[in-house]
Amino acid sequence: MAATVQDAIMLLGDSLTQGGYELNGFAAKLAHVYNRKMDVINRGFSGYNTDWILPVFEQVLYTPCFATQHEQQHVPKVRLLVIWFGANDAAPPPKDQHVPLDRFRANLRKLLWMVRSPESPRYSPDTRIVLMTPPPVNTAQRERAQRAKSPLKELDRDFEMTRRYAEAVGEVGQQESVPVVDLWGKLYDAAGRKEESLEEFLTDGLHLNEKGYAVVFNELDKTIKVNYPKYHYDNMQSVFAYSFDILANNPDKYMELTKKRSAFPE
Amino acid sequence: MAATVQDAIMLLGDSLTQGGYELNGFAAKLAHVYNRKMDVINRGFSGYNTDWILPVFEQVLYTPCFATQHEQQHVPKVRLLVIWFGANDAAPPPKDQHVPLDRFRANLRKLLWMVRSPESPRYSPDTRIVLMTPPPVNTAQRERAQRAKSPLKELDRDFEMTRRYAEAVGEVGQQESVPVVDLWGKLYDAAGRKEESLEEFLTDGLHLNEKGYAVVFNELDKTIKVNYPKYHYDNMQSVFAYSFDILANNPDKYMELTKKRSAFPE
Repeated sequence: MAATVQDAIMLLGDSLTQGGYELNGFAAKLAHVYNRKMDVINRGFSGYNTDWILPVFEQVLYTPCFATQHEQQHVPKVRLLVIWFGANDAAPPPKDQHVPLDRFRANLRKLLWMVRSPESPRYSPDTRIVLMTPPPVNTAQRERAQRAKSPLKELDRDFEMTRRYAEAVGEVGQQESVPVVDLWGKLYDAAGRKEESLEEFLTDGLHLNEKGYAVVFNELDKTIKVNYPKYHYDNMQSVFAYSFDILANNPDKYMELTKKRSAFPE
Repeated sequence: MAATVQDAIMLLGDSLTQGGYELNGFAAKLAHVYNRKMDVINRGFSGYNTDWILPVFEQVLYTPCFATQHEQQHVPKVRLLVIWFGANDAAPPPKDQHVPLDRFRANLRKLLWMVRSPESPRYSPDTRIVLMTPPPVNTAQRERAQRAKSPLKELDRDFEMTRRYAEAVGEVGQQESVPVVDLWGKLYDAAGRKEESLEEFLTDGLHLNEKGYAVVFNELDKTIKVNYPKYHYDNMQSVFAYSFDILANNPDKYMELTKKRSAFPE
């Protein structure tokens, strides 16, 4: 029994993505507003950097069976892919998670290439992409959180370092013509451009709390609406009829009325 | 690009299921505890009864392409199917949503047959099923909520009527040897077996609030743990390695360490 009859939004990222169903997070909110229109597939991998995600993404994109061209039209597609990395790549050396800035940029480009290049074995012309920058780090809050752990841990992130990785995401997006959600800038602005005020949006100086995730959802929502209006939930319909349509038409005709339809109205 | 590389839990139901990603609902909580182990696919259809769901479920189970037996092993499977109906079937006649009790029981049996019978075109021997009863209705709260709508609406549910549909789910589960989450009983007990105290768990006398959904999650969690321990998240592992395993082994070997593995440890 196959699981999918709806197209999907795939969220690819690290712990910030993996935690997206907690705390009324952005994954839960997306899944709710897209209900009956697209599924939300969380492919967040806590602790991962862009080096490690490359072999995983290849497997995530694995197509489980060969479909004829006719059948392929009916295979549920990933319509939106949200790529959100940098929070771990920016771990200062000698941390093993660290990925140098140049390789970070190259890795992001590889992810884009895998989906967008006709030469890629994973080429997916129906998939639209959004990049997101890592949120700003509150260094002092992070240090306190690390020192409160048992056994005690050392500070492992830095405000200035993560800022550079956020900028790199913006550069790659601009060069490759992919829309970027600048969470670094939006959250820093929301905190009055004061590092210590970021505590309002972060649990431990690195990860987002409910208020931080609300900013993620709102900014991503706007970015989809502006850049890919066809794939915004406001412009889609449910794959199966709404009950009020069944009731308003003729409930006895439910067999006919409940036939699967495209989520994209003509 | 196919969306799934993980097996799935499918939630099949009405608005109570559809709303499961809101309010820290049971779908969001399931998706969080099963992260990197199984996807949660919400197939909740607001307003639907068991008559209408039958043709939809056939389409939901549609397999998008033919796989050879070897390939079939790699197709992501629905491992757990949660069936939760009755809240709309129990709408008192002459409401168009009403499904008589005998047909309600027969419809539930048809859903089970579709998945469990080798004669069914949708036969899925790897899928385990859980039935859930509708929650109890707070008639007075429902009447107030309906009368507050604009335009004003009439009372459309009844405590005693829904109780009988909850009982019917229990009977079908017992006859067919399918575990049942008795939400009706659990919520009524939690409200001290007083209809008016159900307000603590319901938004409008019919739908659940955050506290009501917490009961749903906890009871479903226990039912999976007891009846299908292999498919409980505590007994599964992530499909791709945890970052601390990569770091503890040898980060340079990440290509090898990030190979997809079964979510069920040997």
